[in-house]
Amino acid sequence: MRSVGIFGIGSTAFGAASGGLLTLMCDASRQALEDAGGVRPVDAVVAANMGAVRVNRMSGIASALADRLCLVPAAPDTVENGSASGASAFKMGVLAVASGHYDVVLVCGGEKMRDLGAAEATDFIATVSHRYTEYIYGATLPSLAALFTRLHMQAYGVTREDLARVAVKNHANAALNPRAHLRKVVTLDEIVHGSRNPIVADPLRLFDCCPVSDGAAALLLAPLDRRADFERPPIEVAGVGHASAPHAAHSRPDMLSLSAVAEASRRAFDRAGLGPEDVDIAELHDAFTILEIAQSEVIGFFERGKGHLALRSGESQRDARLPINPSGGLKARGHPLGATGVSQVVEVARQLREEAGAYQIARPPEIGFALNLGGFSTNALATVLRRVG
Amino acid sequence: MRSVGIFGIGSTAFGAASGGLLTLMCDASRQALEDAGGVRPVDAVVAANMGAVRVNRMSGIASALADRLCLVPAAPDTVENGSASGASAFKMGVLAVASGHYDVVLVCGGEKMRDLGAAEATDFIATVSHRYTEYIYGATLPSLAALFTRLHMQAYGVTREDLARVAVKNHANAALNPRAHLRKVVTLDEIVHGSRNPIVADPLRLFDCCPVSDGAAALLLAPLDRRADFERPPIEVAGVGHASAPHAAHSRPDMLSLSAVAEASRRAFDRAGLGPEDVDIAELHDAFTILEIAQSEVIGFFERGKGHLALRSGESQRDARLPINPSGGLKARGHPLGATGVSQVVEVARQLREEAGAYQIARPPEIGFALNLGGFSTNALATVLRRVG
Repeated sequence: MRSVGIFGIGSTAFGAASGGLLTLMCDASRQALEDAGGVRPVDAVVAANMGAVRVNRMSGIASALADRLCLVPAAPDTVENGSASGASAFKMGVLAVASGHYDVVLVCGGEKMRDLGAAEATDFIATVSHRYTEYIYGATLPSLAALFTRLHMQAYGVTREDLARVAVKNHANAALNPRAHLRKVVTLDEIVHGSRNPIVADPLRLFDCCPVSDGAAALLLAPLDRRADFERPPIEVAGVGHASAPHAAHSRPDMLSLSAVAEASRRAFDRAGLGPEDVDIAELHDAFTILEIAQSEVIGFFERGKGHLALRSGESQRDARLPINPSGGLKARGHPLGATGVSQVVEVARQLREEAGAYQIARPPEIGFALNLGGFSTNALATVLRRVG
Repeated sequence: MRSVGIFGIGSTAFGAASGGLLTLMCDASRQALEDAGGVRPVDAVVAANMGAVRVNRMSGIASALADRLCLVPAAPDTVENGSASGASAFKMGVLAVASGHYDVVLVCGGEKMRDLGAAEATDFIATVSHRYTEYIYGATLPSLAALFTRLHMQAYGVTREDLARVAVKNHANAALNPRAHLRKVVTLDEIVHGSRNPIVADPLRLFDCCPVSDGAAALLLAPLDRRADFERPPIEVAGVGHASAPHAAHSRPDMLSLSAVAEASRRAFDRAGLGPEDVDIAELHDAFTILEIAQSEVIGFFERGKGHLALRSGESQRDARLPINPSGGLKARGHPLGATGVSQVVEVARQLREEAGAYQIARPPEIGFALNLGGFSTNALATVLRRVG
């Protein structure tokens, strides 16, 4: 298996986009291609997207992307893996290069869904849940997340203030990220006692939920040993891990254990020959505030049931030992579904290159970590990245 | 790069299914798993599907499939690559095993779309076309195929009878295939002079078009060198090739050249160290009758402009030198979009194992070939399979 490197990164601003889905994906892809010094040929294009078939009335969009980027006859593959589409496409790109079948692969994730009404968007996202025991009974992602949140709060003494701390931290980070969706600094007091934080699904309030975003992100992958062909040093894909959990939340022996997250992380660390203690920066899947806390424990950054204590003591701040979501996370950077998994890897790579500008973390990092979820923690992909010479 | 083998195959009957999409996909998957001797663990599940997000209100269906098959924590990936979803998922499964990242991968394609009305189905399928120069002006796949057909007929002297010969041959084959959708033998006279063959898009008539089918097919992949772990000898994946063409039909320098098909086939043959002259059985993407003729030329089975002459002389009949679509092809076996690319590989493997029963080709084959298209020949994947020991 060949070692794979990231040689180019790109991302649009997340938020409400005026252009179409393909325009977003082309913008991000062109950045990644230029960042890689315009390398040609590109052997394959892996597109990640969740909703184009329903929302944008387009299918197999990798073909359109390859065409519009003038990369024909590159091989176009399109991945729809729910909210894990981005990391799933990234994994497939990595394995395609690792296998030796392709040398240069463009991975691009994008979503354009803010044109949907709120009810339609909620229904669309709920299609990741279990069709026969959740979806058809009206379960939505916020409602499942609310159940999970209440359970976690009761088990470990997590307070509403702890949830708010995730939002406060990630909004503060996003305020420094020019590509973030929600760039507004918020205070703990505003969130906990303010009047502009209505209940979404008790105990979750507006500031516990990520926004609905448009956006795209892209990566250029090639074998690590082709680094002489590129201007800049690569970021090594040290390990990728991927696992599933029982689909319906109620059928998991311990819902709080996030077994897919635990297994995916273990696999990624094993492949990298590293552990959670080696990580210098992490982008986690905080679609809801509780998820950052729960994931930070299950991955092994903090002890089980103590993630909120680490938040209280500031250990995951941008200038602390383990910055979590310095880009703003899904909570404030935004969550364009198919783009998210790709953008997490882009943001970790940006930090490892020390090119994050105003939101660059304080200590120069060597090892980064990203976690992307599909469904309600049904499907998890973990990635370990390493800075090389 | 490790050599990859097919150790298990499965397929539902194609047609109008009473069960849901997941039931179809589970049925095909269980067949493939059983055929492989119940091998465990399965490391990853790659699901192929085009319409679930829109048609069945489900997303990231590989998670649901892994769960229902009791394969958790297997890694679930879902591919939506238009009508090439099946072969695209197969390629990703092959590369994942070839890379060494996974040992045992289940690939399952499925589609459940007959519940759609005709107008909705036509619109859904048309989303593979170019959004801004085809789709929004009302281009449909039959209308694009009609333009292509007229052009090909004029260039090479292909007649309406030649188109009908594809249907006659493939219906005759499907009549012997218990899993085929249209198992009705038809005669040249019925098609050309009969009253039950209305115009769909001139010059295409009903019998020039594949049906809208429900169905699923599955494959179990593992490294070739693990054959001692399985009861039956594997079929080797000797080569996979994949390429794109300009997306809009009008922007191709020579629409008839099917450049993606030509390039994908060349790449697959190169990797296999074989050529079209070595192929003993082929499953081609005859969504419209003209496509079997045109592909048979571009792949290199017959000279350019002479595919219809080979049909006239019977060279692609089940008992001839190069049987094409002995399963009945898309035309008569049926075309459940996301399942098609997988089912083509299943059918070629079935022939190489000499297990096709009534539709087994006359001469024992060594080398098989499958071609799956995405969009209107925008995206093509070719696979060369080889019988081993």
